[in-house]
Parts: sequence; structure tokens; C-alpha cells
Amino acid sequence: MNLEAIRAEFPVLERKAYLNAGTFGPLPRRSAEAGARWTQRALEDGRAGHDFFEEALGLRDEARRRIARLIGAEDGSLALVSSTTEGCDIVLAGLDLGPTDEVVTTDVEHPGLLGALRCSSARVRIAEVRDRPAAEALDAIRAELTDATRLVALSHVAWTTGAVLPVAKLAGAVPVLVDGAQSAGAIEVDVTALGCDFYTVSGQKWLLGPDTTGALYVRPDRVESLRLAAPSYLSWADPAELEPWPDARRFESVWLAPGSLAGLVESLALAEEAGEGRFARTRAVAERCRELLAAHADVVTEPGQATLVSFRPRGVEPDEVVERLASEDVVVRALPGCGWVRASCGFWTSEEDLERLVAVL
Amino acid sequence: MNLEAIRAEFPVLERKAYLNAGTFGPLPRRSAEAGARWTQRALEDGRAGHDFFEEALGLRDEARRRIARLIGAEDGSLALVSSTTEGCDIVLAGLDLGPTDEVVTTDVEHPGLLGALRCSSARVRIAEVRDRPAAEALDAIRAELTDATRLVALSHVAWTTGAVLPVAKLAGAVPVLVDGAQSAGAIEVDVTALGCDFYTVSGQKWLLGPDTTGALYVRPDRVESLRLAAPSYLSWADPAELEPWPDARRFESVWLAPGSLAGLVESLALAEEAGEGRFARTRAVAERCRELLAAHADVVTEPGQATLVSFRPRGVEPDEVVERLASEDVVVRALPGCGWVRASCGFWTSEEDLERLVAVL
Repeated sequence: MNLEAIRAEFPVLERKAYLNAGTFGPLPRRSAEAGARWTQRALEDGRAGHDFFEEALGLRDEARRRIARLIGAEDGSLALVSSTTEGCDIVLAGLDLGPTDEVVTTDVEHPGLLGALRCSSARVRIAEVRDRPAAEALDAIRAELTDATRLVALSHVAWTTGAVLPVAKLAGAVPVLVDGAQSAGAIEVDVTALGCDFYTVSGQKWLLGPDTTGALYVRPDRVESLRLAAPSYLSWADPAELEPWPDARRFESVWLAPGSLAGLVESLALAEEAGEGRFARTRAVAERCRELLAAHADVVTEPGQATLVSFRPRGVEPDEVVERLASEDVVVRALPGCGWVRASCGFWTSEEDLERLVAVL
Repeated sequence: MNLEAIRAEFPVLERKAYLNAGTFGPLPRRSAEAGARWTQRALEDGRAGHDFFEEALGLRDEARRRIARLIGAEDGSLALVSSTTEGCDIVLAGLDLGPTDEVVTTDVEHPGLLGALRCSSARVRIAEVRDRPAAEALDAIRAELTDATRLVALSHVAWTTGAVLPVAKLAGAVPVLVDGAQSAGAIEVDVTALGCDFYTVSGQKWLLGPDTTGALYVRPDRVESLRLAAPSYLSWADPAELEPWPDARRFESVWLAPGSLAGLVESLALAEEAGEGRFARTRAVAERCRELLAAHADVVTEPGQATLVSFRPRGVEPDEVVERLASEDVVVRALPGCGWVRASCGFWTSEEDLERLVAVL
């Protein structure tokens, strides 16, 4: 698909320079239409009957298959969940860490992961990477590892700085949980090559799906050792006997509306149609965004990272910039506590979107 | 509202005798329309901006307020969750029970509750109430209480037998978790009068809401003692400091799409408009359902219970009856493992719906 065809899928792009996929992706029309068909069916036929449930379960299979393809996950290694946060909760609750155990994380993590860490009993060690060059992150994280480290929990792409963290180089020696909220669907991800144990996926951001969708990758050899702490009806191969699925499906926690699943599947299909080249294109757009911003702001994100570009506006508060941009139909967000604004570039982003951004600055 | 006006709210009732609210309630048109407006907005404006988030949070407040009114909950005692199952998981995970602790439950519970019990470390004692008269349930449950009992976990209305369990008489002496999937919205519920500690609410059944909605009541004096095991961004009054809300909102686990919340609010509004008399009317419909069924099947549900009526068809398998009924646009369900079929009566159910049911039997 060429850029024009891709952009035609997203009604929001007709009017807005929508640069906020790091919060919510732009929603493709086909995704909303798939949801609307299910709502209509629910209205007229009711949410009942053999076909209804079989089709809903079939959509779960289809969503899992497509997400697995996107992130290089093995068969049976994905659970559909409601968010990356929930994925983190499932892992932290399932590891049953105690007060003598340590988890190493960084100072660029999202409250979704930090909350799960706070609520575990483990001691949390925080590697300071935010104000260091990306190339120094690995050493900073390794310096926090001790004999008591039971988990390294960190983002693949930091939601604030936009930096890519050295996930692959950490995996192997110690179990690794990756918060993939800003990576899955944004940059090429291959969980098998990364070697991580757990990887969370957000459906509503870079996967362009409806709200309240996501997935958790659990490496097949970790399924049995991760305690099932919060089961749902979907956890059981046999609900009458409470016999869990032998694979990662046991961690599925939420009945998602078939319309949400159908929408997610359509969004994933669109991304696939956009082609493998979309990742390289998005990288190029993000670099271009850096380049244009550099003339008007202090760019925080280093070159060669992912799809987020954070910057410190000159002589004006972030919230004020975001509001001024919004009034010109340019959508970005401010990051709390650091004085930065963040632009999210996707394979749907045009040169004109970027020019509209810098025109206001 | 009279019955005709109520029925006109539900497109499925135009064609079907929909008697399956115990699985999924019939969806009112206004609920679907509210959801569709939000989807359209997401498509055209993107899911971003101050107003978007303020309105979404406002809908959460509104949903909580209306559910609180429905079940007699105090201010600040409700958390929005994705299902009754998740409500049970939150409570069981938060109680941190150990292998010397006991939980008393019954043999008529749903896998949603039983799964949470299975995954706790506590010893589970099961009171046998299924094949006893409803009046004997209290003694059967009390007989399982010991000095080690840390929780009684049971349904308010059993999803299989349809019996009302003696929740109020159990509360007080020992903490009580009530699975309200078949009671909230179906019969009059007043959690304060019941005196229970925790009460789960399903949004998509008797509240007539969209999928993946629900609530958990946590009695205000229990908030601090229930460990927050699976936090979300919504758990924190201050996400930067990970400072939890002082009330039950800290247990909120899932970002629900504003469209789902708006739909739920509309469904709750419709029920309120139908009036307080709807509960008495539904009881009368359920009794009439029993009466009509008695001539054609062995009715399992005792008189004077709630809104579910289970029966054993004569000379034919439950699945076959359900299928035959479905082919005549009469929607009920079979219950696994017991040879029963279950009809769900609501304030929207007409005499004709019931006659269509028995006509096929």
C-alpha cells in the first residue's frame, strides 16, 4: 500500500496531524466497522448461541495468531489480556517474589510496570538511564544486577525518552519481563530472537486496535513455573475440572467483546497489508521528525531509536504547547514531570503532518 | 414505563423470546447508540486530548454512582472491573490466604469464583446445598465454618439452581465475598443491609450493559486491609508517586473504552426509568415461568427464589432442547453436567415469551 492508500484508512488523518499513537493509535475505519457489525448483531440476535461463542473464540485465535506473527512468538505463547499493565501484573503476581528477591528496572518506566513492581514484595533496584546516552544503558542496568536478582523488568522502548533499551543483551542470564507498549507494532520485534521470558503488548497503541486489548507473551518453558494468580473462565481447558490450558492461554483474564476482537483483527490485517517496509518507513519518518524539531526545540530523543520523538519546547510550557498544537489540529502529548512534549510517528505519518507540527512551534 | 415501552428498547425482543440474561442481557438500543457515538468520535477526532480523558473519567464516575445506587453501596466503595470473575480474583489475591486458612463455599458456584479459590493457597470447604431445599442452605454452610475460616465465598443467586443463598445471615461473623453475577440488577440488592464485605457485579448480564464491564464492592472498612495485588494506572490518586486512591477505586484494573462506559450508563438509566416496580414484576414473571414449565418439565428452581428458572426436560437431552428452542427463536441455555436447562426472566419478559418457551417443550 502506498502512503495515500494507508492514510485513507484513517478518518482522523483527514483533518488532524495525529501524532499520538504512543497513547492511542489512530483507529482505522475497517476496525470500527467490524465492531459496529458485532454490535448490530448483538442488538438484533442477542449475545447468545453456539455460533456466537464459537465465532468469538475464533476471533481470539485469530488475534493471537496475528500478534504472534507480528512479534515472532511461538505457537501457544500468547495470552490475550486487557493491557500491558495487566500483563505486568500477571507476571509479577505469578513470580511470587519475596522481600529477599530483587527486581532491576530503570528510571524511564511507565506507572503500568512500576505499579506492578510496587505491589510485589520484591526489593526494586532502579538503574538510572534517563539522563545518560542510550549506549550507556546496558552498563547502568548491569550494574544493578546482584545474586538476588530474580527479574529484570524494563521497556523495550522508553515511553518518555523514546530510547530503545538493550533487551536482547540482558536476556539469558536472568529472567526478563519486557514492557512492549511502545515497541510492538512500532518497531520490528522478534521475541524469540530477543530471548526474553515475558513480553507485554498493547492493542490500542501501535497495533491500532480498540481500547482494552493487548497480549502477554510467556515463553513456553516459563508457562508452568509462572503461578496462575488471577484466572478467568478462559484460563481453563476444562472449566468444570478447573484444568488450565497447557500453554499461555491459561493467563487470559478477560472476556473481550467480539466486536473489540474483530476490530483488533482488522487493525492487525491493515498493518500487514501496509507491508514489512512500514517499519523502515516509520524509522525514516521519526528521523525526519527529529531533524525538523531540532530547529525549534531541544530534542531529547537520540537519533537511531524508535518511533517516539520527545523534545523540550523553547520558552513555553509543555502543556501550553500541546494545547496550542491541539487548537491547530496537531495532536501530541506532554510528559508529566519532565517538561517534555512527545510526538509519535507511524507508518501513516506524512511529511505534511510533521510540517504542521513544527509550524506551530 | 409500561411493558410495551420497555420492550421497544430492545431490538432482540422484536423477533426472539430472549430468556438468557443470566449469560448476557438483551442490549438496549440506546446503549449501542451511545457506544457508536464514541466510536465515531474516536475515528474522526482520535482518542486524545484533555476533553477525551475528562469525559471518559466522568463516565467512570457516573457508572460507579449508578451501580452504587442500584446495590445500596456507600460512596467510594465501588471499583469498576471487567467481570465478576475479576472481582473474585481481586479479593482472593488481596486476602493473601495461606494453607492453614480456610474458605467456605458451596457446590453451586460458578467457575469464575471457583477458579479464584483454586488459585488461592487456602483450603476450600464445600457446603453441599445443590440438592437440598433452599431453606437448608444456611445450616449446610454454617456446618463448614471452623476456627480457621477466613472467608465465606458464595453466590447471592446460584447460577445453576437459581436459589437465593442466605448471604445476610452469614455476614458479620466472618468475612463474606458475594458473587453477585445473578443478583445485581435482577433482584433487589442492598449490600449495606446484607452486611457483606465484598460483592461482585456483572455489567453484561442483568445490568444490560456491554461486554467486559462490571464492578466490585469493597466495604469501606476493608479497603486498607485488602492488599492491592494487581494495580492499574487507574489505581493511583497520583500515578507519579504510586499513591493509591483512599477508597475502593484503587482496585480498578482496566481502562474501559468510553463507549462501553457510555453504553453501561445508558443501560443503567433505562433500568432506573423502568422503575422500582421492575423487581416485583420480574419475580412475578419468574413464578409464572415456573408454573408454565411445571406442566412440561421437572422444574429444579424452588418457588420464591430469584429470576432464573432451571428445569430438567422430559425425555430429551438439554442441548437438543436448547437447539430446538433456538430454531424457534427462543433463547435459553443448557447447564453443563446436570442435565438442566435455564431460562432467565427479566422485567422486559412478556407472557408471550414464556408461552413460546413452553410451546416448544
